[in-house]
Amino acid sequence: MLNKLYELIPDENRVVLQNIDEKYLSDSLGRLKGEAGALVFPVSTEEVSALMRFAYAHQLSVTPRGAGTNLVGSTVPREKGIVLDFSLMNHVLSIDEETFTATVEPGVVLQDFQQQVEALGLFYPPDPGEKLATIAGNIATNAGGMRAVKYGVTRDYVRGLEVVLADGRVIQAGTKNVKDASGLSMKHLFIGSEGTLGVITKCILKLIPKPETSLSVLLPYGDLKTGIRSVHAIIKANVGPTAIEFIERSVVELGEKFTGISFPCKEAKAYILLTFDGFQDQVDASVKRVKAVAEASGAIDFIPLSDPALAQDIWRVRGCFVKAVEAVSQQEPVDLVVPIDKTAEFIAFVHETEEKSGVKMISFGHAGDGNVHLCVMREDRDDETWEKDLHAVMNTLYDKAYALGGLTSGEHGVGIAKRPYFLKNTAEDNLFAMRAVKAALDPKHILNDHISYLK
Amino acid sequence: MLNKLYELIPDENRVVLQNIDEKYLSDSLGRLKGEAGALVFPVSTEEVSALMRFAYAHQLSVTPRGAGTNLVGSTVPREKGIVLDFSLMNHVLSIDEETFTATVEPGVVLQDFQQQVEALGLFYPPDPGEKLATIAGNIATNAGGMRAVKYGVTRDYVRGLEVVLADGRVIQAGTKNVKDASGLSMKHLFIGSEGTLGVITKCILKLIPKPETSLSVLLPYGDLKTGIRSVHAIIKANVGPTAIEFIERSVVELGEKFTGISFPCKEAKAYILLTFDGFQDQVDASVKRVKAVAEASGAIDFIPLSDPALAQDIWRVRGCFVKAVEAVSQQEPVDLVVPIDKTAEFIAFVHETEEKSGVKMISFGHAGDGNVHLCVMREDRDDETWEKDLHAVMNTLYDKAYALGGLTSGEHGVGIAKRPYFLKNTAEDNLFAMRAVKAALDPKHILNDHISYLK
Repeated sequence: MLNKLYELIPDENRVVLQNIDEKYLSDSLGRLKGEAGALVFPVSTEEVSALMRFAYAHQLSVTPRGAGTNLVGSTVPREKGIVLDFSLMNHVLSIDEETFTATVEPGVVLQDFQQQVEALGLFYPPDPGEKLATIAGNIATNAGGMRAVKYGVTRDYVRGLEVVLADGRVIQAGTKNVKDASGLSMKHLFIGSEGTLGVITKCILKLIPKPETSLSVLLPYGDLKTGIRSVHAIIKANVGPTAIEFIERSVVELGEKFTGISFPCKEAKAYILLTFDGFQDQVDASVKRVKAVAEASGAIDFIPLSDPALAQDIWRVRGCFVKAVEAVSQQEPVDLVVPIDKTAEFIAFVHETEEKSGVKMISFGHAGDGNVHLCVMREDRDDETWEKDLHAVMNTLYDKAYALGGLTSGEHGVGIAKRPYFLKNTAEDNLFAMRAVKAALDPKHILNDHISYLK
Repeated sequence: MLNKLYELIPDENRVVLQNIDEKYLSDSLGRLKGEAGALVFPVSTEEVSALMRFAYAHQLSVTPRGAGTNLVGSTVPREKGIVLDFSLMNHVLSIDEETFTATVEPGVVLQDFQQQVEALGLFYPPDPGEKLATIAGNIATNAGGMRAVKYGVTRDYVRGLEVVLADGRVIQAGTKNVKDASGLSMKHLFIGSEGTLGVITKCILKLIPKPETSLSVLLPYGDLKTGIRSVHAIIKANVGPTAIEFIERSVVELGEKFTGISFPCKEAKAYILLTFDGFQDQVDASVKRVKAVAEASGAIDFIPLSDPALAQDIWRVRGCFVKAVEAVSQQEPVDLVVPIDKTAEFIAFVHETEEKSGVKMISFGHAGDGNVHLCVMREDRDDETWEKDLHAVMNTLYDKAYALGGLTSGEHGVGIAKRPYFLKNTAEDNLFAMRAVKAALDPKHILNDHISYLK
């Protein structure tokens, strides 16, 4: 039956039915593998619509896929269904400087897009760690990143989406307009839905003027708790930092070893790393004010990273943790969130859990929004032990996060990997409402349903 | 059967079955009137849940109501159903300074809430014109207002909602957490849904630190087009204005007559009114920079409103237009949006339409986000002529707005009043998707369905 795909796609090079490359059967971590009956590279909304009509008629499972950089298994196909790879729909269709918007195809790579708009003096703020992800992939998980403290997350930069529904209908959800109180916001429903409600075929994105300058500041503290406490004072001071990251000294040491770079103020037990951006007078005013706040709230030092080489070094260390972990062990990434005043308490709990369980974890993250990243390390465990230990630790961590008022994921999504913990901690009535919406838009449950929490 | 309500609500003063006051049968304009079989004043989520179970079992129409300040008929009941008035659920349950959030009941009045948080050095930015609206009413229409340019709209300040579904189930959509990639965003679906998907019983709101100072600046221009053009330059300059309003000279004259206040620079044909807020150094830096931009983009003058009396006068004129119109004529309010580069073209079209149709209109609005407010004036037309002329003019205006890429409403919602123009200009497949979601969450169509575009 899948041979019919050759009729829908007028280019046999864009339909693969045999020997599908393994990379299309997983996410970026490769620990979860699915199977697929077909891999298709659509080039237009019309093709996607025709494919969905076909899949809907025959109740075939469909897995949309951007760059496959996700970390929770959202792009793992099942039931020998169809993988829709969007790497050929990677055109920036227009950049509208008058309305500060861009219209792009779903497969545009974040990094390429950011470069293009910045060359025009514009700026696309969402900045998740993975720059090779696609725009629609970012939208599907509502990706966050470090600049979220000042600028918000991907959701805040989506003005409109073209979406192909499960049955092949094409809808335009949102427009170039700034404000919208015109009907149910279908756009917001699709954002963060991990490919379970429709297939994104076009994105209208909000841009802002490019900040003219930026400056990072490193604040060392005697302990993490004081550091996190000072984040509250910094936010309260209205200085508008772009990023507020926290790093423990022990994690910095891992980064120092990995990069060969030496971090300042080694007697610190924790660091807060801030960035400010804007035009020069704005940045100067903010940095001047934050210095006073930092000094009053227990920082050991105040280190403006005005020297570009120093700034690059510090950010290289901050950026290397996942790679540094992966150089020595397989790891399971966690990106849970807790209310911002619970970050220090949660990290203390992580350390307790490490001690009790014997499972090593590296933690760091976005102190400005309570988004904690953990790498849970496998080390030399065999498959069975790893599965058991990982599940036990994850259960403990997520239970604690929820007990503190937190949630499963801040930016990676639920996917397959976090499904059990999300289901365990989400009220039945909430699941009922989500599933009702899912069934309404995808009554045959063909869109990523098998990997989700929606059935 | 409605007598059963006395069993559900253990206080007969909170159930009205006879002689329901007319104000509960309409919105703030009173031009649309419905009928109701019962008026109930719930005081808890449990009562709302019990009421909804009852209404669901008997398929009774339910109309939730805040302060009734809406302008599009969203609180007009029908079919002798139940009006749920939330004026008794008006408590600020907590203000959490650690997480910069507040948890409030739905009937809290915006103005009261703003005063309470500001007394603590905090700030709730959404600022629609009507300060006597309730928080849940603002959420139901995704209310905007003047500060949206810098701070965004109501949606951007809703962290979580407790919602009673049509069948009485209670769900918690969202939390105090900043980031959330944990499942479908039901919260965003409820925001702006005009009471058609569920009844809001609790709101977790995002707060920010209170800006320490603010300064408005008045920029007069030789024509509106140049003024609107300069708005683009101002946004591009990254100075972060809180508000960017446009006013034509002819409208200012109406305000001058109504208030007795004299506006500066009478030779101008249009004004742009800016506000900046933050701490003093930030505001100074922005104002210094915007002066250069304004001068380079054709402003006749640059008038900082540093004198509090002058600032108050200017804002009093800006705030009086609707009242000034209503002093001389009944009016129909319009709050459509167009892409920001189309504002001047749309206003020129409004003037053409006035001339051709003989229907007078006053226009002003938020130049920073293309949100155009119009008061269409009835003057001395009889009912039949007014209905015919109004409908013809509205049709023409909305067709033009949509032709320019605009939408029905930026902040008031669709309701009854804008329903025909919304339906005419919204694609069938979009309506299909919205209706599918509505039917999934309210299968018996009891929640505000009769006044909406959802059936």
